[in-house]
Amino acid sequence: MTAAIDFYFDFSSPYGYFASTRIDELAQKYGRIVAWHPILLGVVFKTTGSAPLPQVPLKGDYAWRDFERTARFHGIEYKRPAHFPLPTTQAARAVLWLQNHHGDDIATAFAKAVFHAYFVDDINIAEPAELVKLAESLGIDGRAMDAGASSFQIKDQLKAEIEVAMAKGVFGSPFVIVDGEPFWGFDRFDQIEAHLKSRRPTELRAVPGKGSNPDSDTDSSKEKQPA
Amino acid sequence: MTAAIDFYFDFSSPYGYFASTRIDELAQKYGRIVAWHPILLGVVFKTTGSAPLPQVPLKGDYAWRDFERTARFHGIEYKRPAHFPLPTTQAARAVLWLQNHHGDDIATAFAKAVFHAYFVDDINIAEPAELVKLAESLGIDGRAMDAGASSFQIKDQLKAEIEVAMAKGVFGSPFVIVDGEPFWGFDRFDQIEAHLKSRRPTELRAVPGKGSNPDSDTDSSKEKQPA
Repeated sequence: MTAAIDFYFDFSSPYGYFASTRIDELAQKYGRIVAWHPILLGVVFKTTGSAPLPQVPLKGDYAWRDFERTARFHGIEYKRPAHFPLPTTQAARAVLWLQNHHGDDIATAFAKAVFHAYFVDDINIAEPAELVKLAESLGIDGRAMDAGASSFQIKDQLKAEIEVAMAKGVFGSPFVIVDGEPFWGFDRFDQIEAHLKSRRPTELRAVPGKGSNPDSDTDSSKEKQPA
Repeated sequence: MTAAIDFYFDFSSPYGYFASTRIDELAQKYGRIVAWHPILLGVVFKTTGSAPLPQVPLKGDYAWRDFERTARFHGIEYKRPAHFPLPTTQAARAVLWLQNHHGDDIATAFAKAVFHAYFVDDINIAEPAELVKLAESLGIDGRAMDAGASSFQIKDQLKAEIEVAMAKGVFGSPFVIVDGEPFWGFDRFDQIEAHLKSRRPTELRAVPGKGSNPDSDTDSSKEKQPA
């Protein structure tokens, strides 16, 4: 039994973009699949009282610097977009519509294309016309997607999806939940990998855990203590 | 010429504590020394509009979980303190007084002892009497330190030190500045190490950088692009 990894992101989040370039690969390595969940940080920030990093005093300049340095450190293509942040509502709705009508694979391919368009090609992804073009480059009927993404049904679904995410404790982007364990930030990918490794089916592990020895009288709570 | 690494921290910051257990070791590996700068996040947060992580809606529960998981991941001793956050003004002032009167080595040893007392032994480091005890365990005259830390001179110095830090862009804990490059968070220690590695004196490098070849017509700006 391998449960999906839940990946929450806002299309205007640079760290969300970085995560989007690695999450599928990481999951695959451990035989997992990824459920992609577009959210709107604007809605979340109303609850947490936060603001986009580049708009916070003192943090702003640092954030721009860190986006670039982090991209370079991890070897990820990145170009500072001219417009930031921008509304990502239509893009998020388009992903939901694609998931409903074309399945996860096409929806995920579209989501990756949107991130790449924004953070590499500096395309204004708030423009519905740009989203239509991106969809068509993937063989998707862009006009149908645009109409569907603008329907009341999808608008309501996005609102509800964000409510669900917040109920699960999601408060930022990227946010990953694996087996009930929450991870906030691209800089937790090392800990996500450690978690996935620890949850691999036993037959794949080189060394079985100590707890698997029924003769052991080790206090299992000790395993939680630092080495 | 090897400049000091500036390390800013608040004693009530768990990630600051984690950083305090690794920063000297990391610096030493690259022939650097560390200048320890106690600051007060309460003062900084007035400018950034932030609050201690565990007090932010939604982020609170996550933060406690992440402190523990991060400690375990990095093999750092950690026990959730009963009182959090607590006032760290007297501890910060004591470090400054020790730097002024006993030098950096003793001040740093005391700072490490304070962090350990708070995040491992659950000692209330807001209590001046506890700080005196810690000092005496290190052979420091605790009463002299307590009196010195309470002087107007040291109070003014701490205020001024925090002003300087903020003028340099410091807005959180831990915050590290190396050769003018700012790094926020314990989760940037991998990027700090990459920076230190790139700044090692040339004779120590195994492979000289491409830019060192005067015959090369490579556009050096390309080195900044992701691989």
